[in-house]
Amino acid sequence: MEIVEKDGRPTVSTAHAGHCQASIKNVSDALYVIGGKWKLSIIVALADSDKRFTEIQRQVEGISARVLSSELKDLELTGFIYKKITVDPVLIEYGLAPYSRSLEQVVRSLSEWGSQHRDKLKTDALQ
Amino acid sequence: MEIVEKDGRPTVSTAHAGHCQASIKNVSDALYVIGGKWKLSIIVALADSDKRFTEIQRQVEGISARVLSSELKDLELTGFIYKKITVDPVLIEYGLAPYSRSLEQVVRSLSEWGSQHRDKLKTDALQ
Repeated sequence: MEIVEKDGRPTVSTAHAGHCQASIKNVSDALYVIGGKWKLSIIVALADSDKRFTEIQRQVEGISARVLSSELKDLELTGFIYKKITVDPVLIEYGLAPYSRSLEQVVRSLSEWGSQHRDKLKTDALQ
Repeated sequence: MEIVEKDGRPTVSTAHAGHCQASIKNVSDALYVIGGKWKLSIIVALADSDKRFTEIQRQVEGISARVLSSELKDLELTGFIYKKITVDPVLIEYGLAPYSRSLEQVVRSLSEWGSQHRDKLKTDALQ
């Protein structure tokens, strides 16, 4: 979707209007897989190193053990993370699978927007 | 977040590791505002032109009138869309407010990823 200015309001250029239906489907498919409240945060939490369950829970504030457990299972099944079990000492860690790299642009754009939006709210509150 | 290859697995470069916590907060704030199942789809549906309630409902497949009504109210309150009421003939339409343009990169990256992910699922299914 390319949003341009037309008659003083944002709109997509006519050439792109036909893509809207496809775009809705793509965005809604993406949010179905990685939307939700926690999945992307968990992926970001694993971005700097493999982590144990409790380490992830500490980093992703507010997530319960039950929900984290279920989210990790989902993320493993969809190929975004892997579970690594070592025996001596017994250690279970989670890490990013190669497919998580496909989300780089999504994470970056959401992170930038989240930061900008927070700044905007602060500015609006001061006006 | 910049994901790079290290020891054969995706990871963020050490220089960026410190940004993870901030990135988690940004992504989670963004998803809090525009995550959900419908909001971005509604914004994409309005991208080519202002639309009436029933037109939006037709385009955003599967949304109920009750949920669409509530989502439109939310989007209006957060400044992403406006409601335009004309009197003669009586016509209520919704359109994109200028702030929706800030979501361009988010929508584009999600749309591209959704499309790529669907292709991947098809390829995986054939293997």
